[in-house]
Amino acid sequence: MASFTIFGTGNMANAIGGVFANGGASVDYVSHEQAADAVVNGDTVVLAVPYPAVAEILKNNADKFAGKTVVDITNPLNFETFDSLTVPVGSSAAAEIQSALPNSRVLKAFNTTFAATLASGKVGDTKTTVLVAGDDADAKSALVTAVQAGGLGAIDAGSLKRAHELEAIGFLQLTLAAGEKITWTGGFGVNN
Amino acid sequence: MASFTIFGTGNMANAIGGVFANGGASVDYVSHEQAADAVVNGDTVVLAVPYPAVAEILKNNADKFAGKTVVDITNPLNFETFDSLTVPVGSSAAAEIQSALPNSRVLKAFNTTFAATLASGKVGDTKTTVLVAGDDADAKSALVTAVQAGGLGAIDAGSLKRAHELEAIGFLQLTLAAGEKITWTGGFGVNN
Repeated sequence: MASFTIFGTGNMANAIGGVFANGGASVDYVSHEQAADAVVNGDTVVLAVPYPAVAEILKNNADKFAGKTVVDITNPLNFETFDSLTVPVGSSAAAEIQSALPNSRVLKAFNTTFAATLASGKVGDTKTTVLVAGDDADAKSALVTAVQAGGLGAIDAGSLKRAHELEAIGFLQLTLAAGEKITWTGGFGVNN
Repeated sequence: MASFTIFGTGNMANAIGGVFANGGASVDYVSHEQAADAVVNGDTVVLAVPYPAVAEILKNNADKFAGKTVVDITNPLNFETFDSLTVPVGSSAAAEIQSALPNSRVLKAFNTTFAATLASGKVGDTKTTVLVAGDDADAKSALVTAVQAGGLGAIDAGSLKRAHELEAIGFLQLTLAAGEKITWTGGFGVNN
Protein backbone atom coordinates (compact mmCIF):
# COMPACT_ATOMS: atom_id res chain seq x y z
CA MET A 1 0.00 0.00 0.00
CA ALA A 2 1.25 3.44 -0.87
CA SER A 3 2.06 5.49 2.22
CA PHE A 4 2.44 9.24 2.53
CA THR A 5 3.79 11.47 5.25
CA ILE A 6 2.57 15.02 4.74
CA PHE A 7 4.37 17.93 6.35
CA GLY A 8 1.79 20.61 7.00
CA THR A 9 -1.75 20.74 8.29
CA GLY A 10 -3.21 23.55 6.18
CA ASN A 11 -5.71 23.55 3.34
CA MET A 12 -3.30 22.11 0.80
CA ALA A 13 -2.00 19.44 3.18
CA ASN A 14 -5.50 18.28 4.00
CA ALA A 15 -6.70 18.39 0.40
CA ILE A 16 -3.71 16.37 -0.84
CA GLY A 17 -4.02 13.89 2.01
CA GLY A 18 -7.68 13.51 1.17
CA VAL A 19 -6.88 12.58 -2.42
CA PHE A 20 -4.41 9.90 -1.36
CA ALA A 21 -6.77 8.54 1.31
CA ASN A 22 -9.58 8.38 -1.26
CA GLY A 23 -7.25 6.21 -3.31
CA GLY A 24 -6.70 3.80 -0.44
CA ALA A 25 -3.26 4.98 0.62
CA SER A 26 -2.14 5.41 4.22
CA VAL A 27 -1.60 9.03 5.15
CA ASP A 28 -0.15 10.69 8.20
CA TYR A 29 0.62 14.30 8.95
CA VAL A 30 3.48 16.16 10.60
CA SER A 31 2.49 19.44 12.21
CA HIS A 32 4.70 22.49 12.54
CA GLU A 33 5.39 21.59 16.17
CA GLN A 34 6.37 18.01 15.26
CA ALA A 35 8.55 19.00 12.31
CA ALA A 36 11.69 19.64 14.33
CA ASP A 37 12.05 15.90 14.90
CA ALA A 38 9.45 14.26 12.72
CA VAL A 39 8.39 10.62 12.52
CA VAL A 40 8.44 9.81 8.82
CA ASN A 41 6.47 6.62 8.17
CA GLY A 42 5.55 7.22 4.56
CA ASP A 43 7.48 6.01 1.54
CA THR A 44 6.63 9.36 0.03
CA VAL A 45 7.00 12.69 1.81
CA VAL A 46 4.91 15.69 0.78
CA LEU A 47 6.19 19.11 1.78
CA ALA A 48 2.83 20.88 1.99
CA VAL A 49 4.16 24.00 3.67
CA PRO A 50 5.02 27.48 2.39
CA TYR A 51 8.38 27.58 0.64
CA PRO A 52 10.06 29.66 3.38
CA ALA A 53 9.29 26.82 5.83
CA VAL A 54 10.98 24.14 3.72
CA ALA A 55 14.60 24.89 4.62
CA GLU A 56 14.09 24.26 8.33
CA ILE A 57 12.30 20.97 7.63
CA LEU A 58 15.14 19.81 5.40
CA LYS A 59 17.75 20.85 7.96
CA ASN A 60 16.09 18.77 10.67
CA ASN A 61 14.93 15.78 8.66
CA ALA A 62 17.03 15.35 5.51
CA ASP A 63 18.53 12.05 6.65
CA LYS A 64 15.05 10.59 7.15
CA PHE A 65 14.14 11.50 3.58
CA ALA A 66 17.01 9.48 2.09
CA GLY A 67 15.74 6.83 -0.30
CA LYS A 68 12.26 8.33 -0.32
CA THR A 69 10.25 10.31 -2.82
CA VAL A 70 9.84 13.94 -1.73
CA VAL A 71 7.04 15.97 -3.31
CA ASP A 72 7.42 19.75 -3.48
CA ILE A 73 4.14 21.61 -3.88
CA THR A 74 5.36 25.14 -3.25
CA ASN A 75 4.88 28.36 -5.17
CA PRO A 76 7.88 30.40 -4.06
CA LEU A 77 6.33 33.81 -4.59
CA ASN A 78 7.55 37.07 -3.22
CA PHE A 79 4.27 37.71 -1.42
CA GLU A 80 5.21 41.31 -0.68
CA THR A 81 5.38 42.32 -4.33
CA PHE A 82 3.42 39.49 -6.04
CA ASP A 83 5.73 40.30 -8.95
CA SER A 84 8.50 37.68 -8.82
CA LEU A 85 9.64 34.40 -7.37
CA THR A 86 12.19 34.08 -4.58
CA VAL A 87 14.20 31.28 -6.23
CA PRO A 88 17.10 31.96 -8.62
CA VAL A 89 15.97 33.12 -12.08
CA GLY A 90 15.61 30.14 -14.40
CA SER A 91 15.64 27.66 -11.51
CA SER A 92 12.81 26.37 -9.29
CA ALA A 93 12.01 25.57 -5.69
CA ALA A 94 11.98 21.91 -6.68
CA ALA A 95 15.50 22.11 -8.11
CA GLU A 96 16.70 23.82 -4.94
CA ILE A 97 15.15 21.08 -2.83
CA GLN A 98 16.64 18.35 -5.02
CA SER A 99 20.06 19.94 -4.53
CA ALA A 100 19.54 19.84 -0.77
CA LEU A 101 18.34 16.21 -0.89
CA PRO A 102 20.72 14.35 -3.22
CA ASN A 103 19.59 10.98 -1.83
CA SER A 104 15.88 11.59 -2.40
CA ARG A 105 13.76 11.57 -5.53
CA VAL A 106 12.20 15.01 -5.71
CA LEU A 107 8.98 15.57 -7.63
CA LYS A 108 7.08 18.78 -8.33
CA ALA A 109 3.31 18.44 -8.11
CA PHE A 110 0.11 20.05 -6.83
CA ASN A 111 1.40 23.63 -7.18
CA THR A 112 -0.92 24.38 -10.11
CA THR A 113 -4.10 23.16 -8.39
CA PHE A 114 -5.80 25.26 -5.72
CA ALA A 115 -6.82 23.36 -2.56
CA ALA A 116 -10.52 23.65 -3.38
CA THR A 117 -10.00 21.98 -6.75
CA LEU A 118 -8.22 19.04 -5.13
CA ALA A 119 -11.02 18.65 -2.59
CA SER A 120 -13.85 18.90 -5.12
CA GLY A 121 -12.13 17.12 -7.98
CA LYS A 122 -13.16 19.95 -10.28
CA VAL A 123 -11.48 23.04 -11.73
CA GLY A 124 -14.62 24.94 -12.62
CA ASP A 125 -16.54 22.23 -14.49
CA THR A 126 -13.45 20.33 -15.61
CA LYS A 127 -11.92 17.34 -13.82
CA THR A 128 -8.90 18.42 -11.80
CA THR A 129 -5.58 17.24 -13.24
CA VAL A 130 -2.37 17.26 -11.23
CA LEU A 131 0.82 17.97 -13.20
CA VAL A 132 3.85 15.98 -11.99
CA ALA A 133 7.45 16.72 -12.96
CA GLY A 134 10.55 14.81 -11.91
CA ASP A 135 13.62 12.95 -13.03
CA ASP A 136 12.81 9.53 -11.52
CA ALA A 137 10.34 7.72 -13.75
CA ASP A 138 9.28 5.19 -11.10
CA ALA A 139 8.65 7.83 -8.45
CA LYS A 140 6.69 9.93 -10.93
CA SER A 141 4.62 6.98 -12.10
CA ALA A 142 3.80 6.00 -8.51
CA LEU A 143 2.59 9.50 -7.69
CA VAL A 144 0.52 9.71 -10.87
CA THR A 145 -1.07 6.36 -9.96
CA ALA A 146 -1.82 7.45 -6.38
CA VAL A 147 -3.49 10.66 -7.57
CA GLN A 148 -5.52 8.84 -10.21
CA ALA A 149 -6.58 6.27 -7.59
CA GLY A 150 -7.89 9.22 -5.58
CA GLY A 151 -10.17 10.20 -8.44
CA LEU A 152 -8.25 13.06 -10.04
CA GLY A 153 -6.43 13.26 -13.32
CA ALA A 154 -2.62 13.24 -13.28
CA ILE A 155 -0.12 13.84 -16.06
CA ASP A 156 3.61 13.30 -16.35
CA ALA A 157 4.73 16.85 -17.13
CA GLY A 158 8.34 15.97 -17.86
CA SER A 159 11.68 16.18 -16.12
CA LEU A 160 12.36 18.14 -12.94
CA LYS A 161 13.51 21.01 -15.18
CA ARG A 162 9.85 21.52 -16.03
CA ALA A 163 9.27 22.54 -12.41
CA HIS A 164 10.34 25.97 -13.62
CA GLU A 165 7.34 26.09 -15.94
CA LEU A 166 5.00 24.58 -13.33
CA GLU A 167 6.06 27.26 -10.87
CA ALA A 168 5.46 29.91 -13.52
CA ILE A 169 1.92 28.57 -13.96
CA GLY A 170 1.36 28.50 -10.20
CA PHE A 171 2.71 32.04 -9.89
CA LEU A 172 0.52 33.45 -12.65
CA GLN A 173 -2.52 31.58 -11.37
CA LEU A 174 -2.05 33.03 -7.87
CA THR A 175 -1.73 36.57 -9.25
CA LEU A 176 -4.89 36.09 -11.34
CA ALA A 177 -6.87 34.77 -8.37
CA ALA A 178 -5.59 37.52 -6.08
CA GLY A 179 -6.65 40.02 -8.76
CA GLU A 180 -10.09 38.37 -9.03
CA LYS A 181 -9.55 37.48 -12.69
CA ILE A 182 -10.17 33.81 -11.87
CA THR A 183 -11.76 32.08 -8.90
CA TRP A 184 -10.11 30.05 -6.12
CA THR A 185 -12.34 27.13 -7.12
CA GLY A 186 -11.16 27.34 -10.72
CA GLY A 187 -8.02 28.40 -12.53
CA PHE A 188 -5.98 26.62 -15.17
CA GLY A 189 -7.46 23.25 -15.99
CA VAL A 190 -6.28 20.55 -18.37
CA ASN A 191 -8.97 20.25 -20.98
CA ASN A 192 -8.98 17.50 -23.58
CA MET B 1 -13.60 50.19 -35.98
CA ALA B 2 -10.68 48.19 -34.66
CA SER B 3 -8.21 47.28 -37.39
CA PHE B 4 -5.55 44.60 -37.38
CA THR B 5 -2.64 43.84 -39.64
CA ILE B 6 -1.49 40.28 -39.13
CA PHE B 7 1.99 39.21 -40.19
CA GLY B 8 1.80 35.57 -41.14
CA THR B 9 -0.60 33.36 -43.07
CA GLY B 10 -0.39 30.13 -41.10
CA ASN B 11 -2.85 28.38 -38.79
CA MET B 12 -2.36 30.83 -35.93
CA ALA B 13 -2.55 33.90 -38.18
CA ASN B 14 -5.79 32.70 -39.73
CA ALA B 15 -7.34 31.64 -36.45
CA ILE B 16 -6.52 34.98 -34.79
CA GLY B 17 -7.74 36.94 -37.80
CA GLY B 18 -10.94 34.93 -37.71
CA VAL B 19 -11.58 35.91 -34.10
CA PHE B 20 -11.12 39.60 -34.85
CA ALA B 21 -13.25 39.39 -38.00
CA ASN B 22 -16.01 37.63 -36.04
CA GLY B 23 -15.95 40.62 -33.71
CA GLY B 24 -16.47 43.03 -36.58
CA ALA B 25 -12.91 44.32 -36.88
CA SER B 26 -11.11 44.90 -40.15
CA VAL B 27 -8.28 42.44 -40.74
CA ASP B 28 -5.57 42.25 -43.34
CA TYR B 29 -2.61 39.93 -43.70
CA VAL B 30 1.04 40.35 -44.62
CA SER B 31 2.60 37.26 -46.17
CA HIS B 32 6.23 36.25 -45.87
CA GLU B 33 6.89 37.61 -49.36
CA GLN B 34 5.27 40.98 -48.52
CA ALA B 35 6.99 41.34 -45.14
CA ALA B 36 10.18 42.91 -46.48
CA ASP B 37 8.24 46.10 -47.22
CA ALA B 38 4.84 45.64 -45.69
CA VAL B 39 1.77 47.84 -45.93
CA VAL B 40 0.59 48.26 -42.36
CA ASN B 41 -2.99 49.51 -42.31
CA GLY B 42 -4.04 48.24 -38.92
CA ASP B 43 -3.87 50.17 -35.67
CA THR B 44 -2.76 46.91 -34.13
CA VAL B 45 -0.08 44.64 -35.57
CA VAL B 46 -0.04 40.93 -34.77
CA LEU B 47 3.23 39.11 -35.28
CA ALA B 48 1.80 35.66 -36.01
CA VAL B 49 5.05 34.14 -37.20
CA PRO B 50 7.60 31.85 -35.55
CA TYR B 51 9.90 33.71 -33.19
CA PRO B 52 12.99 33.30 -35.42
CA ALA B 53 11.13 35.22 -38.16
CA VAL B 54 10.36 38.22 -35.95
CA ALA B 55 13.77 39.91 -36.08
CA GLU B 56 13.69 40.35 -39.84
CA ILE B 57 10.17 41.78 -39.72
CA LEU B 58 11.21 44.30 -37.07
CA LYS B 59 14.32 45.24 -39.01
CA ASN B 60 12.30 46.05 -42.12
CA ASN B 61 9.18 47.56 -40.56
CA ALA B 62 9.93 48.96 -37.11
CA ASP B 63 9.26 52.56 -38.14
CA LYS B 64 5.81 51.59 -39.42
CA PHE B 65 4.99 50.09 -36.02
CA ALA B 66 5.67 53.34 -34.15
CA GLY B 67 2.62 54.46 -32.21
CA LYS B 68 0.85 51.16 -32.77
CA THR B 69 0.06 48.20 -30.58
CA VAL B 70 2.18 45.16 -31.49
CA VAL B 71 0.99 41.74 -30.35
CA ASP B 72 3.58 39.01 -29.86
CA ILE B 73 2.12 35.48 -29.97
CA THR B 74 5.35 33.51 -30.12
CA ASN B 75 6.60 30.56 -28.12
CA PRO B 76 10.36 30.88 -28.50
CA LEU B 77 11.18 27.20 -28.05
CA ASN B 78 14.37 25.50 -28.93
CA PHE B 79 12.60 23.08 -31.28
CA GLU B 80 15.68 20.88 -31.60
CA THR B 81 15.73 19.94 -27.91
CA PHE B 82 12.18 20.85 -26.81
CA ASP B 83 13.88 21.44 -23.45
CA SER B 84 14.40 25.21 -23.23
CA LEU B 85 13.54 28.59 -24.65
CA THR B 86 15.82 30.61 -26.92
CA VAL B 87 15.33 33.92 -25.10
CA PRO B 88 17.51 35.00 -22.16
CA VAL B 89 16.70 33.18 -18.93
CA GLY B 90 14.13 35.14 -16.92
CA SER B 91 13.18 37.31 -19.92
CA SER B 92 10.66 36.73 -22.70
CA ALA B 93 10.25 37.10 -26.43
CA ALA B 94 7.78 39.90 -25.71
CA ALA B 95 10.32 41.80 -23.61
CA GLU B 96 12.90 41.42 -26.37
CA ILE B 97 10.42 42.75 -28.92
CA GLN B 98 9.46 45.67 -26.67
CA SER B 99 13.16 46.55 -26.39
CA ALA B 100 13.42 46.55 -30.18
CA LEU B 101 10.25 48.67 -30.53
CA PRO B 102 10.48 51.43 -27.92
CA ASN B 103 7.82 53.48 -29.71
CA SER B 104 5.23 50.69 -29.82
CA ARG B 105 2.99 49.20 -27.14
CA VAL B 106 3.89 45.50 -27.07
CA LEU B 107 1.40 42.96 -25.76
CA LYS B 108 1.78 39.23 -25.24
CA ALA B 109 -1.26 37.18 -26.18
CA PHE B 110 -2.48 34.04 -27.97
CA ASN B 111 0.64 32.00 -27.14
CA THR B 112 -1.24 29.78 -24.66
CA THR B 113 -4.08 28.90 -27.04
CA PHE B 114 -3.59 26.39 -29.83
CA ALA B 115 -4.93 27.45 -33.23
CA ALA B 116 -7.74 24.89 -33.12
CA THR B 117 -9.01 26.31 -29.82
CA LEU B 118 -9.15 29.82 -31.29
CA ALA B 119 -11.04 28.58 -34.33
CA SER B 120 -13.54 26.47 -32.38
CA GLY B 121 -13.86 28.74 -29.38
CA LYS B 122 -13.35 25.71 -27.12
CA VAL B 123 -10.45 24.23 -25.17
CA GLY B 124 -11.85 20.74 -24.77
CA ASP B 125 -15.34 21.57 -23.50
CA THR B 126 -14.35 24.90 -21.94
CA LYS B 127 -14.68 28.30 -23.58
CA THR B 128 -11.33 29.45 -24.92
CA THR B 129 -9.78 32.31 -22.95
CA VAL B 130 -6.93 34.42 -24.31
CA LEU B 131 -4.43 35.69 -21.72
CA VAL B 132 -3.11 39.19 -22.45
CA ALA B 133 -0.08 40.75 -20.77
CA GLY B 134 1.33 44.22 -21.34
CA ASP B 135 2.31 47.51 -19.77
CA ASP B 136 -0.12 49.81 -21.62
CA ALA B 137 -3.56 49.55 -20.04
CA ASP B 138 -5.42 51.06 -23.00
CA ALA B 139 -3.77 48.78 -25.53
CA LYS B 140 -4.46 45.77 -23.35
CA SER B 141 -8.07 46.74 -22.79
CA ALA B 142 -8.62 47.23 -26.53
CA LEU B 143 -7.24 43.79 -27.33
CA VAL B 144 -9.31 42.15 -24.61
CA THR B 145 -12.40 43.87 -26.01
CA ALA B 146 -11.63 42.79 -29.58
CA VAL B 147 -11.14 39.16 -28.54
CA GLN B 148 -14.34 39.15 -26.47
CA ALA B 149 -16.21 40.70 -29.40
CA GLY B 150 -15.02 37.71 -31.42
CA GLY B 151 -16.72 35.35 -28.99
CA LEU B 152 -13.79 34.18 -26.87
CA GLY B 153 -12.89 34.92 -23.29
CA ALA B 154 -10.00 37.28 -22.62
CA ILE B 155 -8.23 38.16 -19.37
CA ASP B 156 -5.77 40.87 -18.41
CA ALA B 157 -2.88 38.70 -17.19
CA GLY B 158 -0.80 41.57 -15.83
CA SER B 159 2.23 43.57 -16.89
CA LEU B 160 4.57 42.67 -19.74
CA LYS B 161 6.78 40.96 -17.15
CA ARG B 162 4.12 38.26 -16.98
CA ALA B 163 4.98 37.36 -20.58
CA HIS B 164 7.69 35.23 -18.95
CA GLU B 165 5.02 33.14 -17.26
CA LEU B 166 2.80 33.06 -20.36
CA GLU B 167 5.75 31.78 -22.39
CA ALA B 168 6.40 29.14 -19.73
CA ILE B 169 2.78 27.99 -20.06
CA GLY B 170 3.04 27.94 -23.85
CA PHE B 171 6.30 26.02 -23.68
CA LEU B 172 4.96 23.37 -21.29
CA GLN B 173 1.73 23.06 -23.26
CA LEU B 174 3.65 22.44 -26.49
CA THR B 175 5.81 19.76 -24.85
CA LEU B 176 2.70 18.06 -23.43
CA ALA B 177 0.94 18.09 -26.80
CA ALA B 178 4.05 16.86 -28.62
CA GLY B 179 4.25 14.07 -26.02
CA GLU B 180 0.57 13.23 -26.53
CA LYS B 181 -0.29 14.01 -22.91
CA ILE B 182 -2.85 16.57 -24.08
CA THR B 183 -4.57 17.15 -27.41
CA TRP B 184 -4.01 19.94 -29.93
CA THR B 185 -7.70 20.80 -29.59
CA GLY B 186 -7.36 21.12 -25.81
CA GLY B 187 -4.65 22.10 -23.37
CA PHE B 188 -4.70 24.58 -20.53
CA GLY B 189 -8.04 26.30 -20.23
CA VAL B 190 -9.25 28.95 -17.85
CA ASN B 191 -12.01 27.33 -15.81
CA ASN B 192 -14.21 29.31 -13.48
